Amino acid sequence: MSATLDDLPIRDDLRGQVPYGAPQAPLPVALNVNENTHPVPPEVADDILDAVAIALREVNRYPDREFTDLREHLADYLGHGLVREQVWAANGSNEVLQHLLQAFAGPGRSAFGFAPTYSMYPLLTRGTGAEWRAGTRAHDFTVSAESAAAQVAEAEPDVVFLCAPNNPTGTPLPLDVIEAVYAATRGIVIVDEAYVEFAPHEAPSAVTLLPDRPRLVVSRTMSKAFAFAGARVGYLAADPAVIDALRLVRLPYHLSALTQAAATAALQHAPTMLRMVDDIVAQRDRISATVSALGYQPYASWTNFVLFGDVPDPARTWQALYDRGVLIRDVGIPHHLRVTAGTEQETTAFLDALASIDSGA
Amino acid sequence: MSATLDDLPIRDDLRGQVPYGAPQAPLPVALNVNENTHPVPPEVADDILDAVAIALREVNRYPDREFTDLREHLADYLGHGLVREQVWAANGSNEVLQHLLQAFAGPGRSAFGFAPTYSMYPLLTRGTGAEWRAGTRAHDFTVSAESAAAQVAEAEPDVVFLCAPNNPTGTPLPLDVIEAVYAATRGIVIVDEAYVEFAPHEAPSAVTLLPDRPRLVVSRTMSKAFAFAGARVGYLAADPAVIDALRLVRLPYHLSALTQAAATAALQHAPTMLRMVDDIVAQRDRISATVSALGYQPYASWTNFVLFGDVPDPARTWQALYDRGVLIRDVGIPHHLRVTAGTEQETTAFLDALASIDSGA
Repeated sequence: MSATLDDLPIRDDLRGQVPYGAPQAPLPVALNVNENTHPVPPEVADDILDAVAIALREVNRYPDREFTDLREHLADYLGHGLVREQVWAANGSNEVLQHLLQAFAGPGRSAFGFAPTYSMYPLLTRGTGAEWRAGTRAHDFTVSAESAAAQVAEAEPDVVFLCAPNNPTGTPLPLDVIEAVYAATRGIVIVDEAYVEFAPHEAPSAVTLLPDRPRLVVSRTMSKAFAFAGARVGYLAADPAVIDALRLVRLPYHLSALTQAAATAALQHAPTMLRMVDDIVAQRDRISATVSALGYQPYASWTNFVLFGDVPDPARTWQALYDRGVLIRDVGIPHHLRVTAGTEQETTAFLDALASIDSGA
Repeated sequence: MSATLDDLPIRDDLRGQVPYGAPQAPLPVALNVNENTHPVPPEVADDILDAVAIALREVNRYPDREFTDLREHLADYLGHGLVREQVWAANGSNEVLQHLLQAFAGPGRSAFGFAPTYSMYPLLTRGTGAEWRAGTRAHDFTVSAESAAAQVAEAEPDVVFLCAPNNPTGTPLPLDVIEAVYAATRGIVIVDEAYVEFAPHEAPSAVTLLPDRPRLVVSRTMSKAFAFAGARVGYLAADPAVIDALRLVRLPYHLSALTQAAATAALQHAPTMLRMVDDIVAQRDRISATVSALGYQPYASWTNFVLFGDVPDPARTWQALYDRGVLIRDVGIPHHLRVTAGTEQETTAFLDALASIDSGA
């Protein structure tokens, strides 16, 4: 006879909670969690395997606690003269953000973001004992520099999350908003650029704002553009003093030798790894045009997904797509659904399925 | 001009701290962090590589959030009728312990252990905002059932750590101590069996105590006996309700697809992976006998290391060994040093170096 969770001396603030995670279902077309649906090219996988084989020779030893090679390669990939002393990495950008919150938020402090935004921000914030405060966006999910700065000045948070471009809406975030928010707070400003590789090539990254802004942090991930979600590699660039702070809260040896080897090898193939990005952007734009033609309202997206509104009954549309073998995401915004841009075939399957559904309007 | 840590709005409780981690130095004989100094056998490494190659085919997708196959294989390895619903894993046993503390300790709560013990317990405890309380051991570092139960009843902690056998002392922990502590608390009792494979084969594991003890947790690691420190795989066995609690605090997709594949493949070779354990135990016993003959006082050890006392000046002896190319650990216990049992050659190098040093007594 097994115990139940209620029988255990679990923390009171966890009672009644359910685990975070998107519903998982083995459907033929899975466009629900903004993965890159293009596999890693075989020639890159071969080099990754070679690197893992070398790492396995010393896997009986603890890994390099400072993951020096990986940071070096991440700095090179980021460019803009960044060096490895400005780079940090962890098991997915969630762990990167958790490290930041452990160092700069935690009990008695607060973190802030403009809702709707990445749903893990409040969970990560509360998970470290800090309070979550939500700001607002305009009806088209943009936020102006003036409004953003005013809201941040009013909330006085210890950490500000700026998701650029924003998940789950796809919304671009101009650099002037970041500059204004930075000037309006004495806290840490995290610009989460998880999807930045899907933005127009000429759009500048917040990395360009790092000089002379020691409280600015730009987080990234290899999960999306690099098609590396399964390998769990998030990273960030910031002032070296921020990196020193993160060393105080990370678990020693948090990044395995296999992760370090695999990610370093993948970064050496950045152009190849990123060559599917333009394809995905083309499919994203095709989704926007087609759902618009079908009578839905897509939002401007600089990511690998599209949020669309004017869905009379999202649960019904979601289920109808599910019944047709297509999994997308109800992100909880009334009358909206979100879909990831897949391969051309997957995107076609989604658009055909959507077109076949009576919208119920 | 870079900022300093003091310029940043870091948490007050982190100010002045230094990062945790054993001093690292590229010496020929590294016996300082209780690694298994035997590499993974080539035939096992080949199978691990094959598993990683398969995982890479879908590394663009998020990994199995429930790491089902890995838990199944861990349950099989643990035996005693355990099933995967009773098993959890994370990036090293430190993360396993962190998950437990996040669920059952954290702000306003406390964790307890018998000092000297694994130095990460207080750090992990404080890192989750809980208070650390240290109990005491006898002069030979043992703790009796009566004393342990009385100390735990007095301290009323939310989480108790029992390191069995104990690091850094090597001390065995009889099951009656665990039973008595469990009966003396309403909190979670974690038996950390990181080194249990180095105990005598006939010594029972705390896993045998799990039935009818829903607050008992037995944590393990693949770092030591499995020679897998670089892969970062810790795990635990407990009541399924405990696993439910850990799902509330883990980051989604915390275990990479490569980690899951590599660990699962290694577990299928458990007998091969463990075949160096007997060699290591033989070297450990050789260390005990030889340091005793040299006039030091070794403590009974059921681990892959030996703590020895009667060292007049540990810093001096540590440095003299270092100068001879041998790295061991000063764990901060006055007049004591700790050394990991290496290969026969490494162990000989350590013992010869130690014998060549004037103890300064």
